[in-house]
Amino acid sequence: MTSSTRDDGRADDQLRDVRITRGWLDHAAGSVLVEFGRTRVLCAASASEGVPRWRKGSGLGWVTAEYAMLPAATNTRSDRESVKGRIGGRTHEISRLIGRSLRAVVDYRALGENTIQLDCDVLQADGGTRTAAITGAYVALADAVSHLRSTGALTGEPLTGSVAAISVGIIDGVPRLDLPYTEDVRADTDMNVVMTGDGGFVEVQGTAEGASFSRAELDALLALAEKGCADLTRLQREALAGEPAGR
Amino acid sequence: MTSSTRDDGRADDQLRDVRITRGWLDHAAGSVLVEFGRTRVLCAASASEGVPRWRKGSGLGWVTAEYAMLPAATNTRSDRESVKGRIGGRTHEISRLIGRSLRAVVDYRALGENTIQLDCDVLQADGGTRTAAITGAYVALADAVSHLRSTGALTGEPLTGSVAAISVGIIDGVPRLDLPYTEDVRADTDMNVVMTGDGGFVEVQGTAEGASFSRAELDALLALAEKGCADLTRLQREALAGEPAGR
Amino acid sequence: MTSSTRDDGRADDQLRDVRITRGWLDHAAGSVLVEFGRTRVLCAASASEGVPRWRKGSGLGWVTAEYAMLPAATNTRSDRESVKGRIGGRTHEISRLIGRSLRAVVDYRALGENTIQLDCDVLQADGGTRTAAITGAYVALADAVSHLRSTGALTGEPLTGSVAAISVGIIDGVPRLDLPYTEDVRADTDMNVVMTGDGGFVEVQGTAEGASFSRAELDALLALAEKGCADLTRLQREALAGEPAGR
Amino acid sequence: MTSSTRDDGRADDQLRDVRITRGWLDHAAGSVLVEFGRTRVLCAASASEGVPRWRKGSGLGWVTAEYAMLPAATNTRSDRESVKGRIGGRTHEISRLIGRSLRAVVDYRALGENTIQLDCDVLQADGGTRTAAITGAYVALADAVSHLRSTGALTGEPLTGSVAAISVGIIDGVPRLDLPYTEDVRADTDMNVVMTGDGGFVEVQGTAEGASFSRAELDALLALAEKGCADLTRLQREALAGEPAGR
Amino acid sequence: MTSSTRDDGRADDQLRDVRITRGWLDHAAGSVLVEFGRTRVLCAASASEGVPRWRKGSGLGWVTAEYAMLPAATNTRSDRESVKGRIGGRTHEISRLIGRSLRAVVDYRALGENTIQLDCDVLQADGGTRTAAITGAYVALADAVSHLRSTGALTGEPLTGSVAAISVGIIDGVPRLDLPYTEDVRADTDMNVVMTGDGGFVEVQGTAEGASFSRAELDALLALAEKGCADLTRLQREALAGEPAGR
Amino acid sequence: MTSSTRDDGRADDQLRDVRITRGWLDHAAGSVLVEFGRTRVLCAASASEGVPRWRKGSGLGWVTAEYAMLPAATNTRSDRESVKGRIGGRTHEISRLIGRSLRAVVDYRALGENTIQLDCDVLQADGGTRTAAITGAYVALADAVSHLRSTGALTGEPLTGSVAAISVGIIDGVPRLDLPYTEDVRADTDMNVVMTGDGGFVEVQGTAEGASFSRAELDALLALAEKGCADLTRLQREALAGEPAGR
Repeated sequence: MTSSTRDDGRADDQLRDVRITRGWLDHAAGSVLVEFGRTRVLCAASASEGVPRWRKGSGLGWVTAEYAMLPAATNTRSDRESVKGRIGGRTHEISRLIGRSLRAVVDYRALGENTIQLDCDVLQADGGTRTAAITGAYVALADAVSHLRSTGALTGEPLTGSVAAISVGIIDGVPRLDLPYTEDVRADTDMNVVMTGDGGFVEVQGTAEGASFSRAELDALLALAEKGCADLTRLQREALAGEPAGR
Repeated sequence: MTSSTRDDGRADDQLRDVRITRGWLDHAAGSVLVEFGRTRVLCAASASEGVPRWRKGSGLGWVTAEYAMLPAATNTRSDRESVKGRIGGRTHEISRLIGRSLRAVVDYRALGENTIQLDCDVLQADGGTRTAAITGAYVALADAVSHLRSTGALTGEPLTGSVAAISVGIIDGVPRLDLPYTEDVRADTDMNVVMTGDGGFVEVQGTAEGASFSRAELDALLALAEKGCADLTRLQREALAGEPAGR
Repeated sequence: MTSSTRDDGRADDQLRDVRITRGWLDHAAGSVLVEFGRTRVLCAASASEGVPRWRKGSGLGWVTAEYAMLPAATNTRSDRESVKGRIGGRTHEISRLIGRSLRAVVDYRALGENTIQLDCDVLQADGGTRTAAITGAYVALADAVSHLRSTGALTGEPLTGSVAAISVGIIDGVPRLDLPYTEDVRADTDMNVVMTGDGGFVEVQGTAEGASFSRAELDALLALAEKGCADLTRLQREALAGEPAGR
Repeated sequence: MTSSTRDDGRADDQLRDVRITRGWLDHAAGSVLVEFGRTRVLCAASASEGVPRWRKGSGLGWVTAEYAMLPAATNTRSDRESVKGRIGGRTHEISRLIGRSLRAVVDYRALGENTIQLDCDVLQADGGTRTAAITGAYVALADAVSHLRSTGALTGEPLTGSVAAISVGIIDGVPRLDLPYTEDVRADTDMNVVMTGDGGFVEVQGTAEGASFSRAELDALLALAEKGCADLTRLQREALAGEPAGR
Repeated sequence: MTSSTRDDGRADDQLRDVRITRGWLDHAAGSVLVEFGRTRVLCAASASEGVPRWRKGSGLGWVTAEYAMLPAATNTRSDRESVKGRIGGRTHEISRLIGRSLRAVVDYRALGENTIQLDCDVLQADGGTRTAAITGAYVALADAVSHLRSTGALTGEPLTGSVAAISVGIIDGVPRLDLPYTEDVRADTDMNVVMTGDGGFVEVQGTAEGASFSRAELDALLALAEKGCADLTRLQREALAGEPAGR
Repeated sequence: MTSSTRDDGRADDQLRDVRITRGWLDHAAGSVLVEFGRTRVLCAASASEGVPRWRKGSGLGWVTAEYAMLPAATNTRSDRESVKGRIGGRTHEISRLIGRSLRAVVDYRALGENTIQLDCDVLQADGGTRTAAITGAYVALADAVSHLRSTGALTGEPLTGSVAAISVGIIDGVPRLDLPYTEDVRADTDMNVVMTGDGGFVEVQGTAEGASFSRAELDALLALAEKGCADLTRLQREALAGEPAGR
C-alpha cells in the first residue's frame, strides 16, 4: 500500500471528524445528531410498549429502523419518496441493514415486549450516510434503553454490546477509510463493514464498482475497517460517558 | 382582553424565542434552521434552471414548496408518509399554503425561467410549524435569490417584499399570540395569518375548534397577528443583514 | 364601494339562484342536489351504526365528509383521482373543510355511537363548489338525523344549529358575493366563509391571489359574507320546512 | 316458459321505464342522464383534439370510456376508489366493456385525430348500471360527434351505427329482461348483451351464478336480449330526434 | 362453413397439443403445468385452514384465483405489474373469470372452512392463456382437494363436477377452435367459453373485434366450443387417473 | 472444522445438483431454467434497441435485472407484490444485486445502444434463489448477446468474462457450501458471494444472523465460496458449449 494524498489531508486509515451529539430532540427516548465530516444524520429512537402482532405474547421485544434522506441533503435536490408514492430500492436496502445491525446486539428477552423504532434521517449527505446512521443509531438506542430503565419499563440489560459501521474503498489502487462523496464516486471497490464493539463482524458488504477485486484487496479493506470501527467504538463510548449536550 | 398567565411566562402578545440560522446546509442555494421556541424547521431553497413544462417559453419563473414532518418530531412518533405510500391531507394543505404565501412576494418575470423549490422539514414540532416554515422559508428564498444573482442567473429583483406568518388563538376566552402545542390543543379558535413585510394580508385562515367565534373575537385575533408578523418581519430583516452563521 | 356591473346582472351583494332539492337519491339517509347558479353538487348523507375504532366505547358519534369532482364537471375534462391512484391536495383540503364545518354544529353525545358520512360530488362546477357543498351537506345531514330519529337510532337533537358557506372576493377593486368561475379567476382576493345560522364564524379562509389585501378590504368581504350566509340560512330553513321533492 | 309475476308488475320481456335526458351538463360536448327505472347514470362525452401518443400521425381517432360509481349510489355506501388508491376489478372490467362497445360503431378514419372520452358515473344503482351506461353513452357520443361537426372539427360520419345494451337473466327458472337489483341477486344465470341498432351482436357475457345453464336457456336469453336491445334502439332514436332538454 | 387450412395444419375443430403435468411443484397442495401448444401456464393450488373474515363461522369454504403473466411470456417483454404498482384491467378481469369458473363446481359446505387459492402464472403466452389457466387450475384444485382429504382436513366431496374452457373465433369467415396468437389477432369475433364436464355452460364471453356477429355465427361458435370442452374434459380425466408425473 | 453430515448427504464443500437448461422459452433472446437442487429459477433475457433516456446518445448499452418470486414458490404461499401494490425491500435488494453482478462483466461500449433486461422469476424456492438467479442469468445473457450478434445488432464482444454466485454459511460451527432452506434458517452466519470466472470478487455480502462472526470464520467462508463459484463457472461453460435443449 503506497502513501497517498487525500483532498482533505487525512491519512488513508483516518476517520473524518466525527461528532456525536446526544439529546438533540426533546420528545424521542433517545436522539443523536451524528456527523462524519459533512455527512449529518439525525437518529431518533422512539420507544413504545408492545410489539408487532406476529410477536405478541412471546415475551420478546423488537427493534426496527427506517432510513430516509431529506430532499436537499444531496448536491442536487432529489424528489421526496412520499411524493413519488413509493420507497426506492436503496432506501429499503439501507433501512433493512440498519435494523439488522442493531438487532445483532439486542437481547430480545431482556427488552421484554417493548418496541424501539430507530429513525435515521439524513440532513446532509457527503458519503457514508448508512455507516454514520448505524453508528449514531446505536447511541440513540442506548439512550432509549436507559430511558426505559429509568421509567421502570425494563430492568435487565437488553444490549449485549455495541455496534458501529464504516465505509472503506480502493481509490486509484489505494485502500482508504471513511470515504466522502468525492472519493466514493471514484472508488473501484466499495465496502461497508459493521462490527460489534468487541471486534466481531456483523455485516460485510463489498461491491466491485468497476473491475472485480482480489482476495488480497479484500483483506486490506477488512483490516482498515477493523481499525475504523475500533475508533468509532471508542468515540461512542466517550459520547455515552458524558451528559447529553442537547442542542 | 383580561391579563392571563401562560405556562412559559410570556405576555399574551409576545412571540416565543425566535431563532433564524442561515446557511445551515452546504448544498442548497439557501437554507435556514428556524426555531419558534421548541418548534424547529429546516427550510432549504434549491434553485434550478428551467420551469415546469406548462410554463416553458413564458419567460416566467416558478416557486413551489413541500412541507413534511420527521417521524420523531412529535410527542408520539408518527408513521412516515413515504412508507404509507400516500401524503396526508394536512401535509398537502400546508405545502400548498407555504407555496402560495411565498409566491405572493415573487415577481415571476424578474425571476426569469428559474425554479426555486422550498423544502420545509419539521425536525421538532411544538405548535406553529406552518408559520415557522413560512417565516424561515422566506429567508431561505431570499438567500437563494442572492445566490442566483451572484452566479449571474438573474439580474433584477424577483422579490417584491417579505412575508412572515404567525398563529393566534383564543384560549379560555383570551386571545394569544404564537401558540405552543399545549395551548393549541386547548384553543377554542385557531387562526394562522400570513402577512407581507409592509402589512398586507396574504392568507387568513381561522377555524372554530369548538364554538363558533364572533366578529369581535376575529378582530382581536387579527390585531394580535398584525403585531406578531411585524415582529417577525424585523427578525427576518436582522437575520438577512448579518452573515450566514452556517452551523 | 362603487357600483359595478356583473356579467349575470346581479348586484354585488346578491347570491346566484340557489336551489336545494331534497331526497334526490333513494338509498341515502339524506340527499340533496344543491345548485348555486350552474354549480351543481350532489350531497348524500349515509348513516351507519358504530364509529371508527379510535372512538369506540366513547358514547360519542362521528361526522365526516368527502368531496370529489366528476371528470366532466369542469370546462376542460380533468383526470379521475381513482385512475391517478392518489387524491390531490385540493380535494383533501376541501374534504377536510366540509367535515370541520359540519362538525361545528354537531353534539356528538346526542348523536350517540352513530357515524354520518357526507359525500359531496360536484356534477357541474362553476365556482363556489365548496361553499355549495357545505350548504347542501348541512341539509342532507339534517335529513339523515331525522331519519335516524324516525328509526329510533337516536332520541335527542344532535344538531346544535345550522351551517352555511359562501365565497366572496374583490374583482377590479369591488367586493362581490358568490363568485362564478369567470369572476373567481379574475379575483385579486378570494375568501370562503363558513357561518352558523345564528351568525357565528366557523371558518374564514382568505387568500391574496395577486397583491396582498388590506384590513379594510378584509372587513368589507366579511360584511358581504355575513349577508350571504344569512340569506343561505333562510333558504336552508325553507327547504327543510317543505316535503322532500325527490327527483 | 311459464308466466310469472315481477315485483314491479312488468311482463318478463318488458323494459323498465327508460328515460334519456340529453344536454344535462353545460361543458361536455355531449351529456346524457340515462335512467333504467331507479338506475341513474350520468354519461358525459368530452371531445379533444389529438389522440394518445401511440396513435399519433395515424390519421385515426380514438374513443375510450371510464365507469365509476358514486359512494352513495348503492344500498350500503361503498368506499371511494380514489381514497382506496386503486381501481377495483369490477370497475376496470366495466370501463373496458363500455369502451369496446362504443368502438364497435366508430369509424376511426372518419373521426380523424380526435379523441372522445366517455365518462359514465352511476349516481344511483338498481341493477343494470353497465347496460344503462352503454345505452346512454352512445347518445352522448352521438351528440359529441354532432358538436364536432358543428365546429368543423370533422366533416364525415364517424358513427357506423348505434349501440345499446341490456341485461337478461333466469330467475326461478324464468328468463327475464332488464333485471333490477332484487332480481339480479336472485338470478341463477345473468347475461349482458350489447347489440348494434341493426341487430348484430357486439358483446355477449353470460355467467352461471349457481348451477350451469343449458343451451336452451342460453337461446331463450339471447331472444329476450334481442327484443330489449331493439326497444332501446328505438328509444335512442327518439331521444336523438328531439331537442336536448337540458336540465 | 368452407374448409380452411390453419398454419399449424390442424382441422378447424381440433385442439392444439394439450399437456397436463401434475405435481410440478413440491410445496403446493396441487400444481399443474398446463400447455395448449406453446401456451404454458403454471397452476398452483395452495390450501389453508380458515376463510376470509367476512365468511368466518359460516361453515363454508372459499376458492379464489389470481392470474398473472411473466414479463418475458409474450413476444415483446411487458412491464411487471408489481413494478408499475397497480394491476391492469385485463389481469383483474381474467383473475375474476378463473375464480368464478372454479367456484361453479365447488360445494362450499363440503369444503368446510378451508380456503383454496389458485395461482395461474403464464410462463409463455401464445393465445388462450385464460382458457388454459382454467383447464389446468381445475386439475390442480382436484389434487388440492385430494390432499386435504388425505390429511383429514375434509371428508366429503367438495367438487360437484369438473370445469374446462376453450377459445373459439371467426377467422376470415371460418369458425375455429383454440386460437393461437396469430389467429387471435386476426379474428373478427373472439369467444371464450367455460363449461362443466357434463356439458353445462358456466361462462360465455363473446366479443366482436371488428364487425358485429350474427346469431348464426354465434351458434356455430357455441357448437365448436362444446366440442372443444368435451375433449378437454376427457384429457383432464385421463390426467387425474394417472400418477402425478412431477417434473 | 469437524466433519459433519448434511441431510442430503453432501460434503460440506459440495454443490447441490445444478441443472442449466437453455432455450426454455420461445420468445426471449436468451432464456434459462436454472436449478440448484429444488430451487428453480426461470431467467429470461429480453433484448431491445435503444437505452433509457438518461443514457441516450452516449453510445453505451445498458443491462438491468428484475427478480420476483411466484406466490406458490415457497413453503407457505406468499402474497403477490402486484396485488399489494408495492415491491418489498428484499425483492428490491436482490434485483439490484443481480443487475450489479451482471454489469460487472459487461463492456457497455461493445454492447452499443442496446438494452438487455434480465427477468429472474423464482418458480420454486429452496434456499439460494439469488445465487441461482445470478448464475442462470449470466447464461441467458450470453445467449442474448449471441442472438444480438446473429442479427447483426452488434459485432464485438460485450462480455468481458463470466459471473456466478453461491451461498455459504456456518451451521453449528461448520462452514458449508450452497445452503438449502433447512440449513439457511439454522445458519449463524450467511454469506452470498459473486465472482467472475477468472476468480475475481464482484460482491461479498455476509450477515451475522445470531452472534457476530470472526475474521477466521470469514476467511473459511470465502475459501468455500471460491471453490463453489469455480465449480459453477465450469458448469456454465459446459452448458454454453452444448446446444440449447429447449424444453
